Amino acid sequence: MQRYFLQREAFNIDTVELPPDVVHHIGTVLREGPGYRMVLLDGTGVEYESEVLTLDKKTGTAKVLQKREATTELPIDVTLAYALPKGDKVELVAQKATELGLHHLLVFESKRSVAKWDAKKAPKKVERLQKIMQEAAEQSYRAVVPTCQYVSSRELAHGFEQYDAIVLAYEETAKSGEQSALANVIASLAPGARLLLIVGPEGGFDQDEIDGWVERGGVPCAFGPRILRSETAPLYALAAISYALELT
Amino acid sequence: MQRYFLQREAFNIDTVELPPDVVHHIGTVLREGPGYRMVLLDGTGVEYESEVLTLDKKTGTAKVLQKREATTELPIDVTLAYALPKGDKVELVAQKATELGLHHLLVFESKRSVAKWDAKKAPKKVERLQKIMQEAAEQSYRAVVPTCQYVSSRELAHGFEQYDAIVLAYEETAKSGEQSALANVIASLAPGARLLLIVGPEGGFDQDEIDGWVERGGVPCAFGPRILRSETAPLYALAAISYALELT
Repeated sequence: MQRYFLQREAFNIDTVELPPDVVHHIGTVLREGPGYRMVLLDGTGVEYESEVLTLDKKTGTAKVLQKREATTELPIDVTLAYALPKGDKVELVAQKATELGLHHLLVFESKRSVAKWDAKKAPKKVERLQKIMQEAAEQSYRAVVPTCQYVSSRELAHGFEQYDAIVLAYEETAKSGEQSALANVIASLAPGARLLLIVGPEGGFDQDEIDGWVERGGVPCAFGPRILRSETAPLYALAAISYALELT
Repeated sequence: MQRYFLQREAFNIDTVELPPDVVHHIGTVLREGPGYRMVLLDGTGVEYESEVLTLDKKTGTAKVLQKREATTELPIDVTLAYALPKGDKVELVAQKATELGLHHLLVFESKRSVAKWDAKKAPKKVERLQKIMQEAAEQSYRAVVPTCQYVSSRELAHGFEQYDAIVLAYEETAKSGEQSALANVIASLAPGARLLLIVGPEGGFDQDEIDGWVERGGVPCAFGPRILRSETAPLYALAAISYALELT
């Protein structure tokens, strides 16, 4: 069934008003009309199975048939802090991490980030990532659209206290043969726990950065014995979290 | 340490002859020469820590200092049969799956594959994937370069007997809420076992295809409760296998 995210306020009244982009998609792209059934989402984890009541060129309404809690969200709340990589890899990661259950994406410049975001352009780039994540959330049956923010290294470190655990993807850990840290962290998390996952750019993290984060409670982890690219590491971690908490 | 795959025969004699591309990389790209230490690989899982003895414009030799078994290979042998997706997604999967430990990539046309490979062009495309996988293998510290083949659906099904287990990525399984099949399959595998993982194109598999494969021993599996894109599913499965067998 097709899925659409709407503003939360849309569900305050009995008859849901459909926004123009949804009206366009149902009427013009799908060529459907009154009677069409779909799932509407308020972005908080609730699904509303609904039916189109009226549909004109630019406006439309729907009736909620059934309201239910979604079952497609990870049992823990995962934030990825991703050090700005080269090119459009951050877009790939935003899309794939959404499919894999991510809740919040923080993009930041680490010491070795080659790419930089101009302060003026950052809001546009965040907006684009947000759009990619909304589409990925709809397609992957998510009930929550992940949020996206551009933060400084300082803001990142100052936010550590909000999290129950902090995983640092650190390739030197992989090279040294340490292999159980990630599983230990995942096993320590109760449902609803907040996990921060920090992944570096192509050149990895600076030793000073790692040391500072470890001092504040970060745990350097290997994601298997192979050396993963910057954009592969977050996907590995999210798949591992899903496997450990949803499949076993 | 920089890593290079050489032909297996290069290690039959005491002084290893370096091929022109490696000579170019060491001399021109890295600006190194005699005394430079690196890891040479024969592609069978053995690493040779080596030192450059001589290096000219186009030729060079190296001495093996230490020979050892690599520790970066998955404990099981994984083959991915990937139904031809649209665009260059197969290249993304070839690269990422190599990083995640894949051993063999079979590309095939499933009933719902929109993209087709012209029989004449297939060898060129396979060659390109092979090159992507060699580069990914070097960068990710693999000791084996995965193989790549273009096969027909019939060849794929006829090869089922070679495998100890066959996992079918099937999104209907995810929608129905079944969640333990993948973990059960992974738990059943002894070191050295051969696993075949079949992943469909954008439109998923045809019911007839799935039924035929299940009859021959395939196990439909969900990769978590979310619906993954065609190119994300193999990465999820490989990360889950690594997590289960290498990290826990």
